[in-house]
Amino acid sequence: EFFLERKFIQKKTKERALYSHKGNYGHVMVIAGSEGMTGASTIATKAAVKSGAGLTTLISCEDALQAVRNFVPEAMWKKNDDSQGIETLMGKVNSIAIGPGLGKSNETLNNVKRVLKNTDGTIVIDADAINVLEGKTNLLKEAKGNVIITPHPGEMARLTGMEIKKIQSDRIEIAKEFAREYGVIVVLKGYNTIITNGEVSYINPTGNGAMANGGMGDCLTGIIASLCAQGYSPMDASCIGVYAHGECGDKVSEHKFVVTATDIIDNISKTIKELT
Amino acid sequence: EFFLERKFIQKKTKERALYSHKGNYGHVMVIAGSEGMTGASTIATKAAVKSGAGLTTLISCEDALQAVRNFVPEAMWKKNDDSQGIETLMGKVNSIAIGPGLGKSNETLNNVKRVLKNTDGTIVIDADAINVLEGKTNLLKEAKGNVIITPHPGEMARLTGMEIKKIQSDRIEIAKEFAREYGVIVVLKGYNTIITNGEVSYINPTGNGAMANGGMGDCLTGIIASLCAQGYSPMDASCIGVYAHGECGDKVSEHKFVVTATDIIDNISKTIKELT
Amino acid sequence: EFFLERKFIQKKTKERALYSHKGNYGHVMVIAGSEGMTGASTIATKAAVKSGAGLTTLISCEDALQAVRNFVPEAMWKKNDDSQGIETLMGKVNSIAIGPGLGKSNETLNNVKRVLKNTDGTIVIDADAINVLEGKTNLLKEAKGNVIITPHPGEMARLTGMEIKKIQSDRIEIAKEFAREYGVIVVLKGYNTIITNGEVSYINPTGNGAMANGGMGDCLTGIIASLCAQGYSPMDASCIGVYAHGECGDKVSEHKFVVTATDIIDNISKTIKELT
Amino acid sequence: EFFLERKFIQKKTKERALYSHKGNYGHVMVIAGSEGMTGASTIATKAAVKSGAGLTTLISCEDALQAVRNFVPEAMWKKNDDSQGIETLMGKVNSIAIGPGLGKSNETLNNVKRVLKNTDGTIVIDADAINVLEGKTNLLKEAKGNVIITPHPGEMARLTGMEIKKIQSDRIEIAKEFAREYGVIVVLKGYNTIITNGEVSYINPTGNGAMANGGMGDCLTGIIASLCAQGYSPMDASCIGVYAHGECGDKVSEHKFVVTATDIIDNISKTIKELT
Repeated sequence: EFFLERKFIQKKTKERALYSHKGNYGHVMVIAGSEGMTGASTIATKAAVKSGAGLTTLISCEDALQAVRNFVPEAMWKKNDDSQGIETLMGKVNSIAIGPGLGKSNETLNNVKRVLKNTDGTIVIDADAINVLEGKTNLLKEAKGNVIITPHPGEMARLTGMEIKKIQSDRIEIAKEFAREYGVIVVLKGYNTIITNGEVSYINPTGNGAMANGGMGDCLTGIIASLCAQGYSPMDASCIGVYAHGECGDKVSEHKFVVTATDIIDNISKTIKELT
Repeated sequence: EFFLERKFIQKKTKERALYSHKGNYGHVMVIAGSEGMTGASTIATKAAVKSGAGLTTLISCEDALQAVRNFVPEAMWKKNDDSQGIETLMGKVNSIAIGPGLGKSNETLNNVKRVLKNTDGTIVIDADAINVLEGKTNLLKEAKGNVIITPHPGEMARLTGMEIKKIQSDRIEIAKEFAREYGVIVVLKGYNTIITNGEVSYINPTGNGAMANGGMGDCLTGIIASLCAQGYSPMDASCIGVYAHGECGDKVSEHKFVVTATDIIDNISKTIKELT
Repeated sequence: EFFLERKFIQKKTKERALYSHKGNYGHVMVIAGSEGMTGASTIATKAAVKSGAGLTTLISCEDALQAVRNFVPEAMWKKNDDSQGIETLMGKVNSIAIGPGLGKSNETLNNVKRVLKNTDGTIVIDADAINVLEGKTNLLKEAKGNVIITPHPGEMARLTGMEIKKIQSDRIEIAKEFAREYGVIVVLKGYNTIITNGEVSYINPTGNGAMANGGMGDCLTGIIASLCAQGYSPMDASCIGVYAHGECGDKVSEHKFVVTATDIIDNISKTIKELT
Repeated sequence: EFFLERKFIQKKTKERALYSHKGNYGHVMVIAGSEGMTGASTIATKAAVKSGAGLTTLISCEDALQAVRNFVPEAMWKKNDDSQGIETLMGKVNSIAIGPGLGKSNETLNNVKRVLKNTDGTIVIDADAINVLEGKTNLLKEAKGNVIITPHPGEMARLTGMEIKKIQSDRIEIAKEFAREYGVIVVLKGYNTIITNGEVSYINPTGNGAMANGGMGDCLTGIIASLCAQGYSPMDASCIGVYAHGECGDKVSEHKFVVTATDIIDNISKTIKELT
């Protein structure tokens, strides 16, 4: 394992070419949000936009869409009952972030299946989209595209059937093992987040306790999916995303007691710039 | 009685631990807002989020929820007619702020009763949730959890059946007496706000007339409930909340004629940081 | 006539007393906004809040109320079809701003009549509330409260039945004459805005062409009504409001090509502070 | 052809006269937005407001209007099914921006026809309003008013029936030829945007790859239409708009990884000011 070093991240993070157009930076689909948890979806969407995706489309319930129209005018949107339209779009986008605020339901499980089957873009699976895979992790092996999962320790426990304590005591090995078995990248969140594809593993040094509050993970999911759409490899996108997300939080926390998701959204573009 | 000194507050206010996660900072429920007074609920909710709660959920009417989805994407929400879901959540949260913009109605009284009965977290009772207790103050004695009430002098008058003049002429003793009798913490607002549990009493030196406008109290309620959820004792949360709210207003008022609730919300995280 | 001098305005504009509470700064009612012109109402409302009113309530159509809940959480609101509730509130507020975005209709005329009859607070009549008085200016004489009208030259022409050119060529005398005849204060807008009660007249030196765009007048209306509610005399409120509104625009225009209403709203509290 | 030089742009961009009023800066109509693509319309509208139009009215679907009421209170709005009201207003406005987020549909084509027929103001045709002209470019010859079209290379390809590669290899000549044939101004976007009326052609040096993301073009359309309404000639408005839009993006990109439409909106007024 390696500690992610700033220089390593800086080498991977590229300034945009002068001659480029929005088609060069891909299209992110965000599938997120449900009654009572709409913010998870608007946060993930805005994080994707502010991290540089060429286009971003949110799939969600009407309450969330109403909010996203105000909160991120740059994003496009589609109602979650437009199955046909969503599947068609799934075939075209470069990455899909699925999970934040979706709720643990059959519908969520079906959405995860649909994504695994219909896209060859990179899939970032988070939150309730992880929870519904409890006991069904083999579904991950059927993915057409690359998969990144971003559990916090509690979600990793549910996914593996282990206890949280066990996860915490052997974080790196468990993450590596899972990554190897299912052919996915695991971003195991928490202090010193692990990023591993089962072969190479990184430990993230950025981030702090002021970031510990609802919405922070949704934000990271949007950032990683955005970087994937822009052409970074799933592993590079995960490393840059995790590092930048934490560094952004470190800077804001210098003068704020708590760093919330909107603080990250307001500053992530500046932080990534400083890493180029 | 003691004047709250900056050093005393600084000693109580802790930086967050590096290794912490959102579960360490608790869950605040805000029960607030009704037709015509939705802003009270969105302000209290955002104040709770920006003061550092791990999770925050607003219970309110549809008009308020629509606004909160735009104004605080970090917050979760639940419609006020979902009785079952609300009671279940009440049993899990760490603190409940009730009152801002609720209106003086039977429904509000019933909500207060429900909260007193169903949570063992700390309860912050403000505004109309105080007003409906007129003549029914004995209900406070049945609370399962700790109770903080945050009346301004007019609300204190209604609650005690005294005239405002009487309250104003003997603020400290009346607040102490009420706190002792009902086993609650009283935060009697106004210039030199009193915080007392009947035994120890503090007088707050911060705050100013530029803060005298609608929404300012809703803001304080959110801040105190947020600090309670984070693990501060009800007395410490009240002292830190009142002091920080006033200091934040003092700083903004250096360059603004009027300090409104959104000014506090935008700056409270910075102010609390300076107190750690 | 006198040019409004900065020192004169500074003498009139008072810091808020340390011991004051929101009841000391009055309650403004804003009656504004209709289909297609909702922004006029949300701008006037936020301008009132940010200029220091103790409480502010917007009366408008549902589309405008939906926006105000997001844009100014500090404000309260009431739907424009709640006649009974509105009339009751009219009897309690300290000032009423009526007109921005109301549309030229019978309903607007009826609203103007209702305000003139039901409040003894100060009434600020602007925009379409001026336009519907064409040929009915005698209604102004029946006002229970003090009246301020804030026409631009086109509105003044409609009100008096004169041509705009005539108004422009003799602005001060026409404004004074109208003020004297109807017992109102006239704020005749445009470059070098006139403020007159028929006896004393002031010419405002602040403001500039970057401010020439829709919503700017709605903003001024909210500011003047707010100052009235805070206890400034109608004449002082008009002078301070016009001067501060222009000075705020002058400052913003130093680094912006165009100054819009939201620029004023974001900066008016700072500008008024500098005048205390 | 000439490279647009800063001095040349500065000479054309005028400070506003002290004595002016909002009538001097015209009225822009924006026809934009549809289901799933509402942000295009709110972005174009706010860009028009922040670039200095006297009045701005958005014509769109209810979802977009709901967002515009929050996002740009300075703008007026009209629902897109109010045919009579829209046609009446078309006869009065000084410029019309049509296309962003409209969708490629018969309705869009009919709207373009309606605009070409009903206004003698300047028409800025963008996005889907360009796409529906595929094979019907002769409609452009029937325009009552001046026409500016703002295609990116893909849209130019559709419009001309050429391949994108062909467009890219001979950008200036193809743009000039199209401008000459149809009597329009062509703003062919991309790195080194071309502005040509078929006789004089300019090449824009500003702008960068950080601006390559959805909404950026909608923003430019709003800016150009706004400048047209303010009295700049269609050619001058196009040159100033393109130059300022790019320069604004250049400045923001100095400290941000990605520049999005809201970044431009927040800074365009400052950038244009620096060009006066």
